[in-house]
Amino acid sequence: MAVVAGLRAFRAKWPSWLRRNPWAPLSAGFCSPGSAGPAGSESEPRLTSTRQQDGIRNIVLSHPRRRNALSLAMLKSLRSDILHEAESEDLKVIIISAEGPVFSSGHDLKELTDAQGRDYHAEVMMLIRNHPVPILAMVNGLATAAGCQLVASCDIAVASDKASFATPGVNVGLFCSTPAVALGRAVPRKVALEMLFTGEPISAQEALHHGLISKVVPEEQLEAETMRIAKKIASLSRSVVALGKTTFYKQLPQDLRTAYFLASQAMVDNLALQDGQEGIEAFIQKRKPIWSH
Amino acid sequence: MAVVAGLRAFRAKWPSWLRRNPWAPLSAGFCSPGSAGPAGSESEPRLTSTRQQDGIRNIVLSHPRRRNALSLAMLKSLRSDILHEAESEDLKVIIISAEGPVFSSGHDLKELTDAQGRDYHAEVMMLIRNHPVPILAMVNGLATAAGCQLVASCDIAVASDKASFATPGVNVGLFCSTPAVALGRAVPRKVALEMLFTGEPISAQEALHHGLISKVVPEEQLEAETMRIAKKIASLSRSVVALGKTTFYKQLPQDLRTAYFLASQAMVDNLALQDGQEGIEAFIQKRKPIWSH
Amino acid sequence: MAVVAGLRAFRAKWPSWLRRNPWAPLSAGFCSPGSAGPAGSESEPRLTSTRQQDGIRNIVLSHPRRRNALSLAMLKSLRSDILHEAESEDLKVIIISAEGPVFSSGHDLKELTDAQGRDYHAEVMMLIRNHPVPILAMVNGLATAAGCQLVASCDIAVASDKASFATPGVNVGLFCSTPAVALGRAVPRKVALEMLFTGEPISAQEALHHGLISKVVPEEQLEAETMRIAKKIASLSRSVVALGKTTFYKQLPQDLRTAYFLASQAMVDNLALQDGQEGIEAFIQKRKPIWSH
Repeated sequence: MAVVAGLRAFRAKWPSWLRRNPWAPLSAGFCSPGSAGPAGSESEPRLTSTRQQDGIRNIVLSHPRRRNALSLAMLKSLRSDILHEAESEDLKVIIISAEGPVFSSGHDLKELTDAQGRDYHAEVMMLIRNHPVPILAMVNGLATAAGCQLVASCDIAVASDKASFATPGVNVGLFCSTPAVALGRAVPRKVALEMLFTGEPISAQEALHHGLISKVVPEEQLEAETMRIAKKIASLSRSVVALGKTTFYKQLPQDLRTAYFLASQAMVDNLALQDGQEGIEAFIQKRKPIWSH
Repeated sequence: MAVVAGLRAFRAKWPSWLRRNPWAPLSAGFCSPGSAGPAGSESEPRLTSTRQQDGIRNIVLSHPRRRNALSLAMLKSLRSDILHEAESEDLKVIIISAEGPVFSSGHDLKELTDAQGRDYHAEVMMLIRNHPVPILAMVNGLATAAGCQLVASCDIAVASDKASFATPGVNVGLFCSTPAVALGRAVPRKVALEMLFTGEPISAQEALHHGLISKVVPEEQLEAETMRIAKKIASLSRSVVALGKTTFYKQLPQDLRTAYFLASQAMVDNLALQDGQEGIEAFIQKRKPIWSH
Repeated sequence: MAVVAGLRAFRAKWPSWLRRNPWAPLSAGFCSPGSAGPAGSESEPRLTSTRQQDGIRNIVLSHPRRRNALSLAMLKSLRSDILHEAESEDLKVIIISAEGPVFSSGHDLKELTDAQGRDYHAEVMMLIRNHPVPILAMVNGLATAAGCQLVASCDIAVASDKASFATPGVNVGLFCSTPAVALGRAVPRKVALEMLFTGEPISAQEALHHGLISKVVPEEQLEAETMRIAKKIASLSRSVVALGKTTFYKQLPQDLRTAYFLASQAMVDNLALQDGQEGIEAFIQKRKPIWSH
């Protein structure tokens, strides 16, 4: 009850809070299934499992029996796992993957009539973009509707050749309008509309060609390739990466002149960062930089 | 004369009319070549032929002798065929194709000095986007200039491997600036500019890679594949598809937060639709939905 | 000293100047290495070499020893070569290429702390878009950071299969935020972010698939193919191409209706051009047009 109330209070304050102090410590619980913690003690089941090592947090959608549906309970687990110690220097990159043959089947249709669920859902998607560290999707199966949206919303997405992507809501009379927000910003308009109007899946190769994902590898290499990217990011300066991510999304919708103005300001800020100074010094001295993050 | 006057009056009112009541019944004529009707009786030749069956309207550019040029007469035929009973529940999807080896050669150069023709042209292109049902292009030949723009303006485009696409106006001293509006929103900037600056065609495969079309198939499968997509769309709820199409184009140019707000509102509207309720009920009851459109 | 002062004065006036009279004659020096001229007489080394023939200007980044870094000196050379007699009818198209195995390694890191250098840099990139003639990049090696941005900023880019592209600033603690402005507008978001977050290169083929470049050819055909495109453009009406380029970039960020309004106005302007009239007349008379540019 306390957690739910806390989440509600949090949501009410969200926009201004994000602007002022995006990653203030949160009281939201963080624990893997089976471990003790606020979520567990509130007897809300955790539908994700997480582990973190060497700066890399793995969040696994762990409800394959329900095809990892993005139910309200799943979204709460996912959100709390994403937000947990987001401001910690120990966190460098997040990987979202899934147990079982379905990455995620999207919304829980039975919950869709619930307004809170709908808002919550868009909030989690925007959280990914507003989070200070890169968030990768690692996809090894079918990602549909809000599951496809989750992939489209991540910063980077690596998929195996077994993955596929669809927005089939139209089949059950519920057009994938919110997934279309992310999908329409990831792939060409005609590709998005064919997916939305027919509900038919596209393959991993097609998804790669059209920009929905950034890489496709054979299934047996999926984890290695994703970890390779994650380790690379984890070896870099967290503060530099965070500034770069924020700036990228800030300048992208602007006109060219404004975009260059914002990016140029960010270069100044970057140079003022301790790691900005260290990086250049190390480069000039031909040594490996030592990041302070 | 009455038809022309009617069209003129219609055009004058267009923007506000579209906002208030986009698909009010129109008096614009609708008939295939040879059939009786207002257009025929006005002795304006109809340069398209249409047939409609099972919710699928086929509009065929039928003036191969003039390479299906989008002359004012052709645009009027096309527009009237698109608008005819647009609000009817019997119409679920439109396919635009063409007779002969050229899909469309674009503007009639001799008419280009005519201001009315130019405006009319942009109006027809925007009509496709504002129309309640998905509009597919089925392309089996060369689509140039405004013909290429027509393909780019459709919601979905399927092409045979014989199709190609060009914006060659620059060759005759008339840059394809209006086609570039649609082209520049469909393909990457560099691809658009190479096409516009050189006037050279790209192949169907290149068009697919760059997002101008959504699918390429061998010529002998073109009709079957297009019809498969059209039949799939025709089997869905017209009202759900219409809401989804409108919402998609509305949210796409917005910032992410506004886009999610609009899409989330659309989800509420969708759930309130009779077909939205029916779809979910049918899904939960594991039966086929019966749409009321 | 005079040149530097002139450049500074020029920069101060830049935005309004561009709006009022974009291509007024410039006093900025223009010369190849070794030739006499203001730049040479000021003993500022010229790091580019240029030659112009039949309307095609070749600008070659000619400092392979420093991997063609876009140092302030290099940017000044490049800018002056781009601006030199920009308004001349003899100039139809510009090709930017590079000596040596590296197209350009981007910013000179040692100069990055200099605010003037940063602004100058964005200015040169925007100059490419605002220039009246098409500017092509011909890439035969590695293009990193601002070098990658330079390619992304050109109107057209042809690369050999030896070319590759990266934004590796993050490795030295300096996120490629300004290159990301151009990159993020050229390739899908996920591709841009993977490049920016990992610093890893993509191949020419990948760059083509994602829209960063418009064509890839084997190395031995690179010059021939680039010249083929340039010659094609040089054979067209300069005034028509200039109007088309300006209009394209003007309408692209607008909403569809505004874009069509702007493009439709441009069609009127185009028809009023002497070459617009000549082109259509020649077409109707089935003869070759004679451009007056």
